[in-house]
Amino acid sequence: MTKTPGRVSVLETTLRDGAQAEGISFSLTDRLKIVEALDDLGVSYIEAGFPASNPKELEFFAKAGGLALKNARLAAFGSTRKKGAAVADDKNAAALLAANTPVVCIVGKSWDYHVTDVLKTTLGENLKMISETVAFLKERGKEVIFDAEHFFQGYAANPAYALDTIRAAADAGADCVCLCDTNGGTFPDEIYEATKKAVETAGVRIGIHCHNDAGMAVANSVIAVMAGAEQVQGALTGFGERCGNAALSSIIPNLQLKRGIACIPPEQLKNLTVTARLINEIANVAMPEREPYVGRSAFAHKGGLHIDAMAKAPGSYEHVDPAAVGNERKFLTSEVAGRSLIISRIQKIDKNITRDSPETEAVTARLKELESKGYQFEAAEASVELIIRKQLGKYKPFFQLVKFKIIGEQPYSDDQSASAVIKVIVDGRTEVTAAEGNGPVNALDKALRKALEVFYPQLREVYLTDYKVRVLDGGAATASTVRVLIESTDGEDSWSTVGVSNDILEASWNALVDSIEYKLIKDIEMRFRAYM
Amino acid sequence: MTKTPGRVSVLETTLRDGAQAEGISFSLTDRLKIVEALDDLGVSYIEAGFPASNPKELEFFAKAGGLALKNARLAAFGSTRKKGAAVADDKNAAALLAANTPVVCIVGKSWDYHVTDVLKTTLGENLKMISETVAFLKERGKEVIFDAEHFFQGYAANPAYALDTIRAAADAGADCVCLCDTNGGTFPDEIYEATKKAVETAGVRIGIHCHNDAGMAVANSVIAVMAGAEQVQGALTGFGERCGNAALSSIIPNLQLKRGIACIPPEQLKNLTVTARLINEIANVAMPEREPYVGRSAFAHKGGLHIDAMAKAPGSYEHVDPAAVGNERKFLTSEVAGRSLIISRIQKIDKNITRDSPETEAVTARLKELESKGYQFEAAEASVELIIRKQLGKYKPFFQLVKFKIIGEQPYSDDQSASAVIKVIVDGRTEVTAAEGNGPVNALDKALRKALEVFYPQLREVYLTDYKVRVLDGGAATASTVRVLIESTDGEDSWSTVGVSNDILEASWNALVDSIEYKLIKDIEMRFRAYM
Repeated sequence: MTKTPGRVSVLETTLRDGAQAEGISFSLTDRLKIVEALDDLGVSYIEAGFPASNPKELEFFAKAGGLALKNARLAAFGSTRKKGAAVADDKNAAALLAANTPVVCIVGKSWDYHVTDVLKTTLGENLKMISETVAFLKERGKEVIFDAEHFFQGYAANPAYALDTIRAAADAGADCVCLCDTNGGTFPDEIYEATKKAVETAGVRIGIHCHNDAGMAVANSVIAVMAGAEQVQGALTGFGERCGNAALSSIIPNLQLKRGIACIPPEQLKNLTVTARLINEIANVAMPEREPYVGRSAFAHKGGLHIDAMAKAPGSYEHVDPAAVGNERKFLTSEVAGRSLIISRIQKIDKNITRDSPETEAVTARLKELESKGYQFEAAEASVELIIRKQLGKYKPFFQLVKFKIIGEQPYSDDQSASAVIKVIVDGRTEVTAAEGNGPVNALDKALRKALEVFYPQLREVYLTDYKVRVLDGGAATASTVRVLIESTDGEDSWSTVGVSNDILEASWNALVDSIEYKLIKDIEMRFRAYM
Repeated sequence: MTKTPGRVSVLETTLRDGAQAEGISFSLTDRLKIVEALDDLGVSYIEAGFPASNPKELEFFAKAGGLALKNARLAAFGSTRKKGAAVADDKNAAALLAANTPVVCIVGKSWDYHVTDVLKTTLGENLKMISETVAFLKERGKEVIFDAEHFFQGYAANPAYALDTIRAAADAGADCVCLCDTNGGTFPDEIYEATKKAVETAGVRIGIHCHNDAGMAVANSVIAVMAGAEQVQGALTGFGERCGNAALSSIIPNLQLKRGIACIPPEQLKNLTVTARLINEIANVAMPEREPYVGRSAFAHKGGLHIDAMAKAPGSYEHVDPAAVGNERKFLTSEVAGRSLIISRIQKIDKNITRDSPETEAVTARLKELESKGYQFEAAEASVELIIRKQLGKYKPFFQLVKFKIIGEQPYSDDQSASAVIKVIVDGRTEVTAAEGNGPVNALDKALRKALEVFYPQLREVYLTDYKVRVLDGGAATASTVRVLIESTDGEDSWSTVGVSNDILEASWNALVDSIEYKLIKDIEMRFRAYM
């Protein structure tokens, strides 16, 4: 029996292999946010980009290199040197060095057919390409991970040569050799057999990199660890070319909770769900409801039989405690869903309210009603607080909107394509004002602030740091319902609010008003506490 | 080594276990359509409902029994008799008989803990409940499948008793005993071991029924077949409680294409994708893009390296031929994609242009420039065609915008919160018109069509089927750049276009104009071909 490792290192590749997925593209800011979130979660390596693919990559690596990471090491990805050339002259190697990361991942060929028919070179030259590139980067102080492309197809076709390629990397000093199921079609029994052989013969730490084309990437990754692999590569929420990379959001809890193999710091496991959802939010991709461990339905029980049995024996229909991964049990018929979360939010405002108070019932009902209209509160805590205050009678509006009118037009001049006129009343005093903006939402935002700053000068400190739009039912096309999420800050705190409507202006308005009211309440509370 | 079967029977449970998923509910008509589609695909059994759960079930079974099925046998689902009672008096058994199906599936307990602590009866009585219920239904001419609930947890806790329960079913005449991973948390090695033991000792055909809570349901099902299981249960597109049932859309091609184990008639495999999509359409659930074998991205290639290698060796990044399961290969245009893709798009418009023509260079440069501004072309083929035409000088505008003005306001009446005025010129003739909409984009969309339909009546056939908004650099908040993707159809074709601006109205305008121009060019080309 092969010895299963007590811990594995996790290499997360959402920003490299994951970004090759259809429909996925990240801005520079998105990428930096993802690096920070993954570092917080505690992965060992973040494969953050492919420096030779695009000149913009170096700008990103310069910024990412400035982040103070607590757990993860940054990795840049590239390939072995070109055939028949010197690695010192290789543009790819130069780009890898310019990325200035502590770790580099080098992909090279392990399948003889690919060497002869795609690279069109000799088997010997391919071994030299591997060893010279690895040695070059080791000499320059890098931690080097060698990705053995098509290893499993190579091992099936010509096992001796496939093993030669990984030994070439190991002998040149690679710190880890990662076996890649590049076309994602390998079966678990084949993965086990070939990985075991590699572990026994390579003389270096072995990793596994699976794709999900046969729907078995998670199982294949787990099985490779059972065969002795000590590094698992994947994307947290399974992003990646074609059917995606192995989903670390399943692999990590599988190994850590069920086989006691450490992947991330144990206290971080409860942040798995929130981190997975954050990455999908940043990518603006809906998380599949039934995604194992982290999906919204992952612990949802509908059948009456199941719900009864769950009360008697929670393990009956749940393989792990949802809290262990930061997810929640949901009973679809009994509507107790999420109540423990709601009660904790309510008690922040009124400590005397309990689980069974009528107020808890009323808040739950209101949140459910809004959710059925498309609201989503996970990323909008400030809006939740306002809803709770309204239900508890602890809310008084700070202003009254009389009307606004927004005009957008083409052609336009001065980069200001829209203007807004607004009329508000505060304590009986009327303010009418106007503002221009690039686009109607921007004009409305500026006009509203300008009007209210007359009464609440502290709003000058507030600015918006993020604005997201999601079309909820695309089938109704330009008349679709849209959800707007806004993130605001006053330099000290930041908070998020949400609005939903089939008019994007109205949805944005709702989120803007929540943001402003939350700020004003926050300031009053701070002043109140200062006098207590 | 265990003998792997040459064929397995497939039991499809979308209509029973699948319907227990969050958000899934089927009408009677939906259910009949699904039965027919699954029968066409050629599964062996359709587990179509749970007659004792609801009186309406019998109405469905009466109708389903009247369908002339070519391949599948209908199955009704129920449980073993109640403890301490006679099976002849059991309501559940009566409902199963009333369903009048040739096959019945009976679920019973295989985990000692569940017998004593949930059923609260003796281990001996549970064995009698199993054998008496099976025997009763066998005597009445049914083909009986026994579902051994929690078999793998039972086998881990008390292997002798777990095996006793399946022997009780076998000895009473069950035609197949199906091992259920009810909480979905079992690992492939545990599945293999326990299934092998069951195959060796039960003296009856063994089946496998997996759930996906650990993300390994497909692999677990495949591994059970390798251990000798001869029936696979699952839902075609993975519907089911919590994380879903094992996805037959992956298991069937895995076994049939890669291990030569027959599951459905070989000529039906090419209908796998269309059947899977049909079921999701009926359920009104979006198919995950990256679903193995049947998703829209399952064979989509984006990385430039991959696209070049695919031309040389198709097996490099595809584990099977997409046509084998009725899916399609897709090359995505994007900044990481190579020139070979762009050239194929150009040659659709002008066959004389080659890889090295200056036009190819110009188109590539233009696409890269637009991508750096936030355009994304992989889902906007119609916009790519227009950009190519503009670069090749094969484009003439169909209209000229003089101006538009959009007004959005609050408060509003009649659900129409915005109105748009537009002025266009076509062939020297001016048209001024206006429209209302719910939201500014909807108003602009309606006004533009209204103005252009005067000149191009065929635009009446066009309507938008999807509208997506993505904020690209949320940090600039309401002044952020937004990308709008529109999907349009004229009933025959559908096409996608894209627009980018920091004004959502301008971004929408660009995508709308591309959509209309693409339609008008398409119609001219069709008429031209008709005369050639």
